Amino acid sequence: MVDASILETFPTPSETPFVIEHIAEEFTSRCPKTGHPDFGVVTLRYEPALASAGGVCVELKSLKLYYQAYREEGIFYEAVTNAIRDDLAALLHPAWLQVITSWKGRGGIRSEIRATCGEPPMAYQTPTR
Amino acid sequence: MVDASILETFPTPSETPFVIEHIAEEFTSRCPKTGHPDFGVVTLRYEPALASAGGVCVELKSLKLYYQAYREEGIFYEAVTNAIRDDLAALLHPAWLQVITSWKGRGGIRSEIRATCGEPPMAYQTPTR
Amino acid sequence: MVDASILETFPTPSETPFVIEHIAEEFTSRCPKTGHPDFGVVTLRYEPALASAGGVCVELKSLKLYYQAYREEGIFYEAVTNAIRDDLAALLHPAWLQVITSWKGRGGIRSEIRATCGEPPMAYQTPTR
Amino acid sequence: MVDASILETFPTPSETPFVIEHIAEEFTSRCPKTGHPDFGVVTLRYEPALASAGGVCVELKSLKLYYQAYREEGIFYEAVTNAIRDDLAALLHPAWLQVITSWKGRGGIRSEIRATCGEPPMAYQTPTR
Amino acid sequence: MVDASILETFPTPSETPFVIEHIAEEFTSRCPKTGHPDFGVVTLRYEPALASAGGVCVELKSLKLYYQAYREEGIFYEAVTNAIRDDLAALLHPAWLQVITSWKGRGGIRSEIRATCGEPPMAYQTPTR
Amino acid sequence: MVDASILETFPTPSETPFVIEHIAEEFTSRCPKTGHPDFGVVTLRYEPALASAGGVCVELKSLKLYYQAYREEGIFYEAVTNAIRDDLAALLHPAWLQVITSWKGRGGIRSEIRATCGEPPMAYQTPTR
Amino acid sequence: MVDASILETFPTPSETPFVIEHIAEEFTSRCPKTGHPDFGVVTLRYEPALASAGGVCVELKSLKLYYQAYREEGIFYEAVTNAIRDDLAALLHPAWLQVITSWKGRGGIRSEIRATCGEPPMAYQTPTR
Amino acid sequence: MVDASILETFPTPSETPFVIEHIAEEFTSRCPKTGHPDFGVVTLRYEPALASAGGVCVELKSLKLYYQAYREEGIFYEAVTNAIRDDLAALLHPAWLQVITSWKGRGGIRSEIRATCGEPPMAYQTPTR
Amino acid sequence: MVDASILETFPTPSETPFVIEHIAEEFTSRCPKTGHPDFGVVTLRYEPALASAGGVCVELKSLKLYYQAYREEGIFYEAVTNAIRDDLAALLHPAWLQVITSWKGRGGIRSEIRATCGEPPMAYQTPTR
Amino acid sequence: MVDASILETFPTPSETPFVIEHIAEEFTSRCPKTGHPDFGVVTLRYEPALASAGGVCVELKSLKLYYQAYREEGIFYEAVTNAIRDDLAALLHPAWLQVITSWKGRGGIRSEIRATCGEPPMAYQTPTR
Repeated sequence: MVDASILETFPTPSETPFVIEHIAEEFTSRCPKTGHPDFGVVTLRYEPALASAGGVCVELKSLKLYYQAYREEGIFYEAVTNAIRDDLAALLHPAWLQVITSWKGRGGIRSEIRATCGEPPMAYQTPTR
Repeated sequence: MVDASILETFPTPSETPFVIEHIAEEFTSRCPKTGHPDFGVVTLRYEPALASAGGVCVELKSLKLYYQAYREEGIFYEAVTNAIRDDLAALLHPAWLQVITSWKGRGGIRSEIRATCGEPPMAYQTPTR
Repeated sequence: MVDASILETFPTPSETPFVIEHIAEEFTSRCPKTGHPDFGVVTLRYEPALASAGGVCVELKSLKLYYQAYREEGIFYEAVTNAIRDDLAALLHPAWLQVITSWKGRGGIRSEIRATCGEPPMAYQTPTR
Repeated sequence: MVDASILETFPTPSETPFVIEHIAEEFTSRCPKTGHPDFGVVTLRYEPALASAGGVCVELKSLKLYYQAYREEGIFYEAVTNAIRDDLAALLHPAWLQVITSWKGRGGIRSEIRATCGEPPMAYQTPTR
Repeated sequence: MVDASILETFPTPSETPFVIEHIAEEFTSRCPKTGHPDFGVVTLRYEPALASAGGVCVELKSLKLYYQAYREEGIFYEAVTNAIRDDLAALLHPAWLQVITSWKGRGGIRSEIRATCGEPPMAYQTPTR
Repeated sequence: MVDASILETFPTPSETPFVIEHIAEEFTSRCPKTGHPDFGVVTLRYEPALASAGGVCVELKSLKLYYQAYREEGIFYEAVTNAIRDDLAALLHPAWLQVITSWKGRGGIRSEIRATCGEPPMAYQTPTR
Repeated sequence: MVDASILETFPTPSETPFVIEHIAEEFTSRCPKTGHPDFGVVTLRYEPALASAGGVCVELKSLKLYYQAYREEGIFYEAVTNAIRDDLAALLHPAWLQVITSWKGRGGIRSEIRATCGEPPMAYQTPTR
Repeated sequence: MVDASILETFPTPSETPFVIEHIAEEFTSRCPKTGHPDFGVVTLRYEPALASAGGVCVELKSLKLYYQAYREEGIFYEAVTNAIRDDLAALLHPAWLQVITSWKGRGGIRSEIRATCGEPPMAYQTPTR
Repeated sequence: MVDASILETFPTPSETPFVIEHIAEEFTSRCPKTGHPDFGVVTLRYEPALASAGGVCVELKSLKLYYQAYREEGIFYEAVTNAIRDDLAALLHPAWLQVITSWKGRGGIRSEIRATCGEPPMAYQTPTR
Repeated sequence: MVDASILETFPTPSETPFVIEHIAEEFTSRCPKTGHPDFGVVTLRYEPALASAGGVCVELKSLKLYYQAYREEGIFYEAVTNAIRDDLAALLHPAWLQVITSWKGRGGIRSEIRATCGEPPMAYQTPTR
């Protein structure tokens, strides 16, 4: 298993709720069955807890190193998505968090897995076009 | 009819709800009237049942072989979409499942059929842009 | 007026609700004022009634011929959209139906008309990105 | 001010609600401060009142001439959007109307203004992808 | 800190609610840790208060100069987004306001931060496609 | 056969060679075998003869009417392309002329036919990217 | 081997050289090693011999059936491309002919094979942008 | 006619040949027949003469004002393109110059006119992809 | 260094020259300075020697494994491109070969390296658009 | 003037000619007239001299710092392009070098400047599509 203790945080800069998104386009792990490399994009979205509630944000460089630690891991699409969600939820105690992994595909099938914790912050929606 | 027993499953890795999407861009069957080949894209989206409820995920290679079994089937757009939905719903007993087939078109008309079972998991929505 | 009796149907293959979309990219009629040809894309979306309720789907080749019958008709954007909606709603008695016409534009203005009958099937929605 | 009496109407062709969209990609006016030309796209969307309620649609050629009348007007983004909304709402008495202006930008900033009258016709929504 | 007193306003032109969007594609600041330049796009959306309530709009040139003032500031993604939201909310007292910053990325990760004040104006939504 | 006498010309405005391109996106004719409508895009490019040599350009409205005259013609892709090339070459006596027709496709195959008269004006090339 | 005698021709309509392109987006064959289906796009471009030299064009429907005959063939990318080139060159005796096959990819690698016969018709080039 | 004396120049900064491109996306003039506004994009490309030969570049703000001067001119596509080419060639005495105007289209036909003076600078070509 | 003996070949299927392209979108190696992973796309294009001259093609699965062998190599962009070119040229003795590597970028700069051996097969060019 | 001594080199890894491209998407300088910031993309392409001739490549991090040094420089589009070309040509003594700057535009006009030194390496061209 990847060691989540590499992840660092800093205090949220605001007492007002807001949403953060980090898209990592260079994620790779290995198929646990065949050992062949998998390539994907990992999108992390979350609303930190408020500053007065001890809310924290994930530090970007530590997030990059945490993702790189999966490079030689043998792990299924579904499992890696849930693992990242669990590690970041445990780290951040966010108001809402979502992890989406998009995989380039194998055997003509591309895949996308999305895992969430908490209710989506409906109040931050934009009027649709 | 295509034999759905080719489909295999594995236990869901999580006690928290999440959503899986598999997009198969190389699907082909035959028109039952003319025998001409049809070409389409099949999108499968589902939320597995929870691990504690015996939730399972469809194994990706068996899904590919199941789709390939339609190659010489004579079957209408509407029927193949409902058949895939029924086979996968019976296999997975998911919290929610959706099958969308997109066809390149015939006679200047392209088509898309979508079949669903269960209520969409609204709690996993992302704030729209 | 275009003769809607050219349209044919077949029984819906499912007792479960599902949605069908046909996009005809090669539609042409004439402007009733100037006689100049108009070019548009006609999108038809509907949820057939259930099989047990005598639900039917529109046969694709007859739909193509029905659209072709507008080729020499002089008819406004708004009128042709409502006519197609009315003809198909009378034919299919669907749970929901939507017709959208998109026109390449005249005098620097492009237009899109959408007509509907019935409530949209909210239960078939996909979680948005 | 631009003279809205140039706008013409015709009776709505339907007793069933429907939605009309006209996108004018060649709109130009002038900045009231500098006199420099502004270029934008004007999108008009509306649901006419029902035929039985005297519902009318805007005639397309008169709409084009109305837009052209702003060519030498010195008027701010925000003001022109509200003016078009007010003129068309007064003309059409629609069930719902929306005007969106998109401007190519000045000083590295592009802008979009949207003005509405009435409640959006939720019943005409399409199931999202 | 950037001096927000550079921002100017003008009275809203309308007694009817409407929405304004300004997209600044040429925003740059500096990373407070490394001093390296960051490049992003800043989207501001707001609904001004009504004219009768003293509603004001932000003047576009002053907004440009306010954004340029961040050029040599060392400030994190999260902090700059909240600062812009706070400065503009204090200036405009809007019915609703949203600031979205999109960053080209560092170390293979691109980021987007969105901060809001007030409830989104649902009444201005467009029927989705 | 379509009557080319509908085509009109005007004198070229220049004693220096230049190149004109007209792209007609709304061309339709009929398949001579099946009678089904074909839809295509017709691109015309030419370098008029010099003014001192009696060079002429094709008038745009007459070109539109000439294209519309093919609406009910039964004619193959290859033949219509050569016919337009021959008609316009006979009308314009250009230094160079090229006709390209792009067809949306039938039976899963899209087609493009290009016919030319004269040597391409190499001197007008742009340095490639 | 696929039987090329299914291909039909018709006389070229012109005494002037021109170029024909047919793009078949729904081609499928099988990998001779694994038996798994391959999916590709086949582009055929050629300049028929002149009418006075007995030049012929390939009939479009027979081309479609010829391509469909590869559906259950086990054949490598490189071989199928050369086979199509050889069959069509033997049929058409063209001034120039080119076959390009583009394959969706296997194991993260997509491929494109191009085979030609004769010198490319340089005289038909368009001035580049 | 538009007064070209509004155009200003500055000395070329280099003794080595190089190429300049300015793309003006907000050009408008009027049709001399109907008076209706035309909208286009004007691309200017040129290689200034060498500094030692008195080479000059066109000043960007004066170019903008020169283009704006066409706003109320009634002038055909072909004539305006040649006029801009002639004015700028007379101003700059460049090694090579090209003017391309792209028009949004009228009656379903979009147009592009390109006029050149001098031989294209082949030595500056990039190896194509 | 990566062991090129993993690469396998098969005899070229044709006595006529043709061109093969393989695009590997999932290539990764490591920066030799920092150890951080690099991600790129590797395009290989070549014309095999003729069959009568003992021409061979690279086998696709062995090419995939050869690329995967760079996963933990510390190697610069320029060096890996030349190494792949050298290995494949030594293996295939092709008439022409080209390797292009495209890298997602570091520090805001994306890079592309192209290495070639032999003269490009000009006879296979397509008439440009 | 920017100090080019910040640029570093390393020996070319190959005795065979090859081409390197670096695209910097985050370049900014200032307009020397108004002081307003300019934003552009800088593309550098070059063929290093051979290893046996002492050929060198530019080190990527030093290139990034060199570009960042223009951040507060007041310099015209044309001058900055020629300066980068001159600095890099003096540093690398390449077989061929090209600098292209693309600017987001001011007053509705976007610009691109390209400067070159040496003859383009025609031998590295790819057969065009």
